[in-house]
Amino acid sequence: MAGFLTLDTATLSSLHRKLLLEYEGFKKKNLKLDMSRGKPCPEQLDLTNGLLSSLDGNYLAEDGTDCRNYGGVEGLPEARRLFAACLGVQPEEIMVNGNSSLALMHDLIARAMLFGVDDQERPWGERPVKFLCPSPGYDRHFALCELFKIEMIPIPMQQDGPAMEEVEELVAHDESIKGIWCVPMYSNPTGVTYSDEVVTRLATMKTKASDFRIFWDNAYALHHLTDQPDRLLNILQACKEANNPDRVYIFSSTSKISYAGAGVAMLASSVKNIRRLAKLMSFQTIGPNKLNQLCHVRFFKDVANIQAHMKKHAALLRPKFDLVLEILQTELGNKNIATWTKPNGGYFISLNTLEGCAKKVVRLAAEAGVIFTKAGATFPYGYDPRDQNIRIAPTYPPLHELKLAMELFTICLQLASIEKILNDRTTQSVTLSTIKAKIV
Amino acid sequence: MAGFLTLDTATLSSLHRKLLLEYEGFKKKNLKLDMSRGKPCPEQLDLTNGLLSSLDGNYLAEDGTDCRNYGGVEGLPEARRLFAACLGVQPEEIMVNGNSSLALMHDLIARAMLFGVDDQERPWGERPVKFLCPSPGYDRHFALCELFKIEMIPIPMQQDGPAMEEVEELVAHDESIKGIWCVPMYSNPTGVTYSDEVVTRLATMKTKASDFRIFWDNAYALHHLTDQPDRLLNILQACKEANNPDRVYIFSSTSKISYAGAGVAMLASSVKNIRRLAKLMSFQTIGPNKLNQLCHVRFFKDVANIQAHMKKHAALLRPKFDLVLEILQTELGNKNIATWTKPNGGYFISLNTLEGCAKKVVRLAAEAGVIFTKAGATFPYGYDPRDQNIRIAPTYPPLHELKLAMELFTICLQLASIEKILNDRTTQSVTLSTIKAKIV
Repeated sequence: MAGFLTLDTATLSSLHRKLLLEYEGFKKKNLKLDMSRGKPCPEQLDLTNGLLSSLDGNYLAEDGTDCRNYGGVEGLPEARRLFAACLGVQPEEIMVNGNSSLALMHDLIARAMLFGVDDQERPWGERPVKFLCPSPGYDRHFALCELFKIEMIPIPMQQDGPAMEEVEELVAHDESIKGIWCVPMYSNPTGVTYSDEVVTRLATMKTKASDFRIFWDNAYALHHLTDQPDRLLNILQACKEANNPDRVYIFSSTSKISYAGAGVAMLASSVKNIRRLAKLMSFQTIGPNKLNQLCHVRFFKDVANIQAHMKKHAALLRPKFDLVLEILQTELGNKNIATWTKPNGGYFISLNTLEGCAKKVVRLAAEAGVIFTKAGATFPYGYDPRDQNIRIAPTYPPLHELKLAMELFTICLQLASIEKILNDRTTQSVTLSTIKAKIV
Repeated sequence: MAGFLTLDTATLSSLHRKLLLEYEGFKKKNLKLDMSRGKPCPEQLDLTNGLLSSLDGNYLAEDGTDCRNYGGVEGLPEARRLFAACLGVQPEEIMVNGNSSLALMHDLIARAMLFGVDDQERPWGERPVKFLCPSPGYDRHFALCELFKIEMIPIPMQQDGPAMEEVEELVAHDESIKGIWCVPMYSNPTGVTYSDEVVTRLATMKTKASDFRIFWDNAYALHHLTDQPDRLLNILQACKEANNPDRVYIFSSTSKISYAGAGVAMLASSVKNIRRLAKLMSFQTIGPNKLNQLCHVRFFKDVANIQAHMKKHAALLRPKFDLVLEILQTELGNKNIATWTKPNGGYFISLNTLEGCAKKVVRLAAEAGVIFTKAGATFPYGYDPRDQNIRIAPTYPPLHELKLAMELFTICLQLASIEKILNDRTTQSVTLSTIKAKIV
């Protein structure tokens, strides 16, 4: 079929009627599906069964620490070693913490607000703070900015990461810009992995604020979907080489490796930053749940095992991504009403509709019982200026539900697109007659 | 033996020489004992073995939630119900969280600083804030105040809780007083349980600050050592009845019930406070480790089981407390150089030396290889104005080590006491001769 924009109004109207019938048919199915969040599916979680029983009555860490007792704010040495190897940093450059990397980010910003990011710097909270927000991006990052009243400046996401000219220009001249949010690998939602050049420029760029920080949420570091995975430059190394050793905070977790919400989270940075954070955290807690850390170390053992484990995840997820991409291609291919990403890893497919259609598509799908991430959520303040980005999260539903959901989705998208095209034509024609009337 | 103060100088000097020999003997043992923190001993931790294997492959909560996946910021419903019953509150009045009640306190203050404790109130951080600190008290509470630059006002701890006339007078007239730290049951370190009158007065008192809050660290709610346990009035109920429903935050954890650092922590308060906190926490985390909560619910089942479990803890701890008390009585009884508490529960014995001796006792013990809690730590800013309070933590060491440590302790205490008495006599005699010289 030719692009919708080239079809005449009668053809489009007739197609709209046909699609509406199909849509009503879907409504009658009384679906109740939720595709809004990047959650692992039960089969993925089953891959880690055995984790809790991996200790076999031996609760002692390698240094003799009883993991059932207090202490060790930076995390178990063997856990630090294991996850340092995963992230390509040194064990002393990482702390292994509780169950949530989001909490590490939240707490880091709260601390920056109250105490600054360095003993030589002022607390951020004393003056207005701004963050750069490559968009579309992760809604929970943007929510943290809203919570802490940090002004968000959207930065276009490109094929190789954020638009660096814009980033460099802004940070060079505005001292109130203290941070940038990055999901550098298999980005949420676009699936983009930052190019070496982008990573290097982020590490190297001149910033007006001496306490500027990169919030590097490497949530999908090991979450490949193919055998030709993307590769991400080591930003901690790049920052060291650029003589900005304290610039980056790297976050990661096993939420999508072991258990979502019952895994372990980690923060990597310069030894100086880690030591200062550990000192501040020692007021907050006597230590993280070391028993859960020990379970992870005993269950996963080493990086090679984790990589093998991630291949099992990929084997479960690949068919879901393939199905979504196949349905999108079959139903929308060549209609010129949407573009979408084909990621090599991560948890999302990002789709752009014609301008002004995303909200309507998500609303139509919701009214037929399928919840997608709220349109606009991938932009600061929930405001997608072109109303066109939709995040598709294929991981949780079983294939037969995913098929239904995506078929419905493509119908909703076609409906909204036709309505948009027809509406545009009417407006143009009205405008045209208005102009003609004025001329007469 | 008569009180040291009634002994003549020669007798005391001779005794000092004898004790010094004993002390040197201890030094030769090369002891390396740590009695500084209230840590459970390995036998106590063993009581909870089986916790991690209690799920038996069933990860579903009673409402069907897969505890291996994301969600549920307020905690598992069955965990809220279980710990609500432990604390005498309603399930909707409690949230069950991560592994650390200290983190709940820390985060609550950080939030109060940045966002206030109520949507109608100003952030605490906008103006100077003061807290009342019943002393001796818990050093980590005081450390939180130091971290957040909250001025601490010491309040004398009495036999039934903090000196309430002083508390009432201060909070009635100073709007900058926003909080009071309380360990209301088997208080750290005094072992005091607040009387009904004290609880009622705390709940009822008029406060100048409309956003005044009681930080009620009920860490030892179930931690009885005897069959005639203390009883604590329900402060949430008392606050409701006094028409101050939002005044109290109650903290507790299973750190000394299941595993220290690998248990679950909880926060109880009014439904209004809990809802507001859950909303703020939903920015911080997608949810706590529900799997660990489920393990706790499956392992402990109900309050009666937890109480039975706590009797096993008591059976392990009672001999340790008895040994310490026995050695103190045998070695120090009737010497009038120290007083100490005989708690019905909790983790500590609090001992007061003659004025000006605590630091020296702790130093002497450390130099012979036994670490006690730093003298002064039980007071705000680490400053015990009379330098007399020492916190003894008998729970961790095995009995034979405890015996050695306490024997050494009593020697150090007698040495420091004699030195103090002799020094006082010299000073008095010098002062006396100065006066005489002046008269002549």
